[in-house]
Amino acid sequence: MKILVINAGSSSLKYQLIDMETEKVLAKGLCERIGIDGSKLTHTPFGKDKTVIEQPMKDHSDAIKLVLEALTNAEYGVISSMDEISAVGHRVVHGGEFFSKSVVIDDNVKKAIDQCVPLAPLHNPANLIGIEACEKAMPGVPQTAVFDTAFHQTMPREAYMYALPYDLYEKDKIRKYGFHGTSHKYVANQAAEMLGKPLSELKLITFHLGNGSSVTAINKGKSVDTSMGFTPLAGVVMGTRSGMLDPAIIKFIADKENMTLEQIDTLLNKESGVYGISGLSSDFRDLAAAANDGNERAKLAIDMFIYSVRKFLGEYIVVLGGVDAVVFTAGIGENTADMRAAILNNTEFLGIEVDPAKNAEAIRGKQLDISAANSKVKTLVIPTNEELMIAKETAELIK
Amino acid sequence: MKILVINAGSSSLKYQLIDMETEKVLAKGLCERIGIDGSKLTHTPFGKDKTVIEQPMKDHSDAIKLVLEALTNAEYGVISSMDEISAVGHRVVHGGEFFSKSVVIDDNVKKAIDQCVPLAPLHNPANLIGIEACEKAMPGVPQTAVFDTAFHQTMPREAYMYALPYDLYEKDKIRKYGFHGTSHKYVANQAAEMLGKPLSELKLITFHLGNGSSVTAINKGKSVDTSMGFTPLAGVVMGTRSGMLDPAIIKFIADKENMTLEQIDTLLNKESGVYGISGLSSDFRDLAAAANDGNERAKLAIDMFIYSVRKFLGEYIVVLGGVDAVVFTAGIGENTADMRAAILNNTEFLGIEVDPAKNAEAIRGKQLDISAANSKVKTLVIPTNEELMIAKETAELIK
Repeated sequence: MKILVINAGSSSLKYQLIDMETEKVLAKGLCERIGIDGSKLTHTPFGKDKTVIEQPMKDHSDAIKLVLEALTNAEYGVISSMDEISAVGHRVVHGGEFFSKSVVIDDNVKKAIDQCVPLAPLHNPANLIGIEACEKAMPGVPQTAVFDTAFHQTMPREAYMYALPYDLYEKDKIRKYGFHGTSHKYVANQAAEMLGKPLSELKLITFHLGNGSSVTAINKGKSVDTSMGFTPLAGVVMGTRSGMLDPAIIKFIADKENMTLEQIDTLLNKESGVYGISGLSSDFRDLAAAANDGNERAKLAIDMFIYSVRKFLGEYIVVLGGVDAVVFTAGIGENTADMRAAILNNTEFLGIEVDPAKNAEAIRGKQLDISAANSKVKTLVIPTNEELMIAKETAELIK
Repeated sequence: MKILVINAGSSSLKYQLIDMETEKVLAKGLCERIGIDGSKLTHTPFGKDKTVIEQPMKDHSDAIKLVLEALTNAEYGVISSMDEISAVGHRVVHGGEFFSKSVVIDDNVKKAIDQCVPLAPLHNPANLIGIEACEKAMPGVPQTAVFDTAFHQTMPREAYMYALPYDLYEKDKIRKYGFHGTSHKYVANQAAEMLGKPLSELKLITFHLGNGSSVTAINKGKSVDTSMGFTPLAGVVMGTRSGMLDPAIIKFIADKENMTLEQIDTLLNKESGVYGISGLSSDFRDLAAAANDGNERAKLAIDMFIYSVRKFLGEYIVVLGGVDAVVFTAGIGENTADMRAAILNNTEFLGIEVDPAKNAEAIRGKQLDISAANSKVKTLVIPTNEELMIAKETAELIK
């Protein structure tokens, strides 16, 4: 069975075609500048060079058609006909309180995704456009929606409610939703497999640390708390996002700097985080290099990131009443041994012991147990694979 | 030596006269409605009935004069002359980055307190008025300022900085300050005494839980992190304050509810917290009674409070790398055994074990070790006494 995974943005569309028997990516690619001058498709068949197709795409329907052409192309295609695609799995950012798991898309599902637009005004409309383009281009092929928020719908009330007047929850649906759910779920499943134990017997803390970062407490396979909130702005310090703040700061900035809420929104999302602190870069490799050269603010930015992640380790150990394994994933989590070591520094009293040699040897793209031999709590590095998770959920749904 | 402790609000003034040899409160009282029709002074000499003096006070100078008259009154006074007052200790809310300890007040100190007015626009002006009224009424008597923020000035940069553009710290002094410092410092000192160990050898987590609540991590006697932030709005869920929020919620409320930042400020400070969730009361006794009667939202409010406090327990255990004792103080911390038990529920894996019988027997106003006999981490209940702490710091300064 082959599943096409689609991640549609407002002017972009990412895809992967995955063979479910081997879990191999047959081809992947990206349509850029959809509806804008200079649209192009970059298509990469497995193990071959990429092909760049520069061709106008006036909308997402054009983009999907081009993707299907590329996938079936005699020269650089990977399937002989569109009929080989059993289903399409769509990444959808926000499922609100409607969706606690992945679903086959029908009109009601689309209506519900549309109702969540106020909660994700940039992402959900683009996701819907991607879905409708696929429905048009591939009539009769089942489409599924896999939500970033769904995995976190198991959080208990005391974890997802904010201490605001209750009607803001009832009327405006203001609550913690959490994001990166597909990634946290994927690595939790992998962790159980690595540990040789059923997920239902495990307490896990999963660290998805990339340009956007979140930490999740997982009890018996269920998300019980997560660091992102109503939006992906909350939680740990990120590349350009502030993470948690005293909410009173917003008004203070508005008054002092004479800024609108629109401008402050941009400031908090695009100009803050380690970028805002360092004034240099949102890329941790740049910051590490600068800190190494004695740049104090780069060092501070890194220290603040680590500190904010460590706090969630503490929170979630108490929330879970202990932990069996901590899991690192995504760009920083998978590739930066120093960062993993710093986050877990001085946590032996919690039973967490990392083997420095194993930590240093972790190879990009490979799962690894980096715990010290006698560590009570296991520390795992697990490359995330949201596309494979979307494909798996899709395959499961159309069975 | 006798010290007069003053806590001046915009239209009120609280005082205590403390004998430093016995640490006894000789008299205490409250001036209300200063500058408003119907001003009155309620004066209570130690061990005697209170006297209410209804007399116009057009400003804080009038109030201080009335206080001094009451203290020296033949009938209900406690000293024979104003000369017996060796010094006046003023509670000042915000010392910004100027003050990391208490100081004798001079013109430069007053200037610095004035410079902190933007950081505490309601409190610092009132504190200054109180200071100047005392200077006028008691020329030559040393005056000291004891700041709510000073104890937390030892926080490291990664703890006090927010991940915002760095110039907002440099220009506008936006950072975490923390509050309740005098209380956290007081109970930390008392805890060391109870444990029979020097503060310099202890890791403590102090829970000041009242209508306003904060949690502080104290390493070797120094505050290394605290839950309140730039303002007292941040941190745990409080009586009417929200505590921590996804900062993106502010703009969402402004747009959805068509509210100004002024209105949202009121909403977050006065209409949120357990009051906002329950829609009932900010008083935990009311909530406990309602929850007992099956009120779901009252129960949720209590659960959210407990959950938010527990998270800081976890954060600070990681920040400190372990903990020797946890300390409960202030209204809820001192008087609600159920709440203490719930906050420390299922933390045996951290070495925290409470003796339920001792916890239940804790008597209002008395220090008590409620740990189980073999508990690795001690749990202490210590009544806070900010006035005594202010008096002690004042006595120390004028020595």
